[in-house]
Amino acid sequence: MVTAIVNPLVQEVLDLIGIFAFALSGALLAVRKRFDAVGIAVLAEVTALGGGVFRDLVIGAVPPVAFTDIAYFTTPLVAAAVVFFWHPRLARIRRFVLLFDAVGLGVFCVAGTVKALNFGMHPLPAVALGAATAIGGGLLRDLLSGEIPALLHPRSEIYAVPALLGSALVSILAVLHLLTPITSALAALIAVVVRLLALHYGWRAPLARGTTAQ
Amino acid sequence: MVTAIVNPLVQEVLDLIGIFAFALSGALLAVRKRFDAVGIAVLAEVTALGGGVFRDLVIGAVPPVAFTDIAYFTTPLVAAAVVFFWHPRLARIRRFVLLFDAVGLGVFCVAGTVKALNFGMHPLPAVALGAATAIGGGLLRDLLSGEIPALLHPRSEIYAVPALLGSALVSILAVLHLLTPITSALAALIAVVVRLLALHYGWRAPLARGTTAQ
Amino acid sequence: MVTAIVNPLVQEVLDLIGIFAFALSGALLAVRKRFDAVGIAVLAEVTALGGGVFRDLVIGAVPPVAFTDIAYFTTPLVAAAVVFFWHPRLARIRRFVLLFDAVGLGVFCVAGTVKALNFGMHPLPAVALGAATAIGGGLLRDLLSGEIPALLHPRSEIYAVPALLGSALVSILAVLHLLTPITSALAALIAVVVRLLALHYGWRAPLARGTTAQ
Repeated sequence: MVTAIVNPLVQEVLDLIGIFAFALSGALLAVRKRFDAVGIAVLAEVTALGGGVFRDLVIGAVPPVAFTDIAYFTTPLVAAAVVFFWHPRLARIRRFVLLFDAVGLGVFCVAGTVKALNFGMHPLPAVALGAATAIGGGLLRDLLSGEIPALLHPRSEIYAVPALLGSALVSILAVLHLLTPITSALAALIAVVVRLLALHYGWRAPLARGTTAQ
Repeated sequence: MVTAIVNPLVQEVLDLIGIFAFALSGALLAVRKRFDAVGIAVLAEVTALGGGVFRDLVIGAVPPVAFTDIAYFTTPLVAAAVVFFWHPRLARIRRFVLLFDAVGLGVFCVAGTVKALNFGMHPLPAVALGAATAIGGGLLRDLLSGEIPALLHPRSEIYAVPALLGSALVSILAVLHLLTPITSALAALIAVVVRLLALHYGWRAPLARGTTAQ
Repeated sequence: MVTAIVNPLVQEVLDLIGIFAFALSGALLAVRKRFDAVGIAVLAEVTALGGGVFRDLVIGAVPPVAFTDIAYFTTPLVAAAVVFFWHPRLARIRRFVLLFDAVGLGVFCVAGTVKALNFGMHPLPAVALGAATAIGGGLLRDLLSGEIPALLHPRSEIYAVPALLGSALVSILAVLHLLTPITSALAALIAVVVRLLALHYGWRAPLARGTTAQ
């Protein structure tokens, strides 16, 4: 039933890079919100694993890999410890949160779409699920921090769009039988670059017709 | 194991009506909160599909129909586009949110209970799950918008009660072997009417003894 | 596949005690936030069952026991009714919330870890899942009440740490073949006592290096 499109080891390494990046983003936000050590660890875990746990529950891959592969669970703790002891001076934090978050976004939309396709999902829902994997952790991170999720409001640069782009590229590549470790790394890179360009140039999603920003 | 109580096509049509209504309610709230296009689309999707995804995960119907049936996933996007381009003038919005939300509530509590019964759940938990299907999407919508869920506080008219009523009617009809497309449509209608009457006459749930409203 | 480590009846009784305690904590917070009867019932249900539903979805025990065992679903309603009619005077409420919450925490981390082990999970992820079972309901309770989860910020005494301690004790006892009803009750008691000592002496988790409290 399950067709391995990408080498399992490559998928695990991709996943762990995304997990570490997202965990850093969660832990750094926790420091910015002045949460304690437990809050830093929980926010690192939730940001890093939330999207993947959701994906695995949806595709029926239970227990989710986050609860079976020790590396998935311990990586966010390493990121939390790094942030706890060596977090950069407060002025630099916001920039780091955004950079690591972009890396996590790119890797997760690709890894999520690949795993959904591996579990036999059709290409279109696989795009949705890949994007949900990528934005789910950050959404939970913002909710737990008491903030309206950044991806919803027009004060933040486009976030879900790069994730959808990366996921769509993976599904198109899979349909064209062109999905390889190289091409999927490229899809992730494109998503990261689009997110960073959006941050640099202030690309925002439009408001509903007739609405003005707050 | 699975007994089809209601014709599958009828259930899909019921589901899609509820999805469209809930998506409108989510998208209109997003406009009211001045979220951008992405926020409107995400809130439409989450409000429309959140309750059903929860129901499907609980009964073990994975992947949830929201991720396998393209119509389920694209309908909220249509509703989001309708709201984006033709949303009524701001003064009218709150009334529309409440009306469409009531329709979604009625359809979802019935569709959720029917699907739970179809998956072999006993009538009492099926009532709980049907109501959870109906209130789950709106609850997520409020959480993502940074508001305390309307169904919890005494400033809003009863919301979970009509859902429980509709779900209970379906379970009773099923036990009496009287559940047909007609009677389940009637149960949905009763839930919608009770919700609208509650809005019109300001029916509220009581506060704990000795407590006064804020 | 499933090895019964603890007598199923003992596990159900443990679960129901934890459910009642957590439901009281949720219902009392709802009264404190001046939610209505529906809000009290929903917060009782979510606080009591949220962690267990999450655990069951993760280990693939669907439908979750909360939706199949009538006792699990009705117990929070009893607690909600108790609070609705006989909730203590407002000044006493905060103390009661914290006490019952501690009892729920202790029982749930143990019951969650035991069930995860019963489903064949390895001891280390079972610790994580047991702790998630224990803190999940309270986390949802705080989110639904519009508060930043207490376990994240340094203004509250350690909460996840006693849960992790109780869960770790269960996993260690299981590895050493010493897990019995007596020893698991002891592990729960230790978690409760550590939580109550933390409340009494104001034990808090440390902040990240160089950060000062808000």
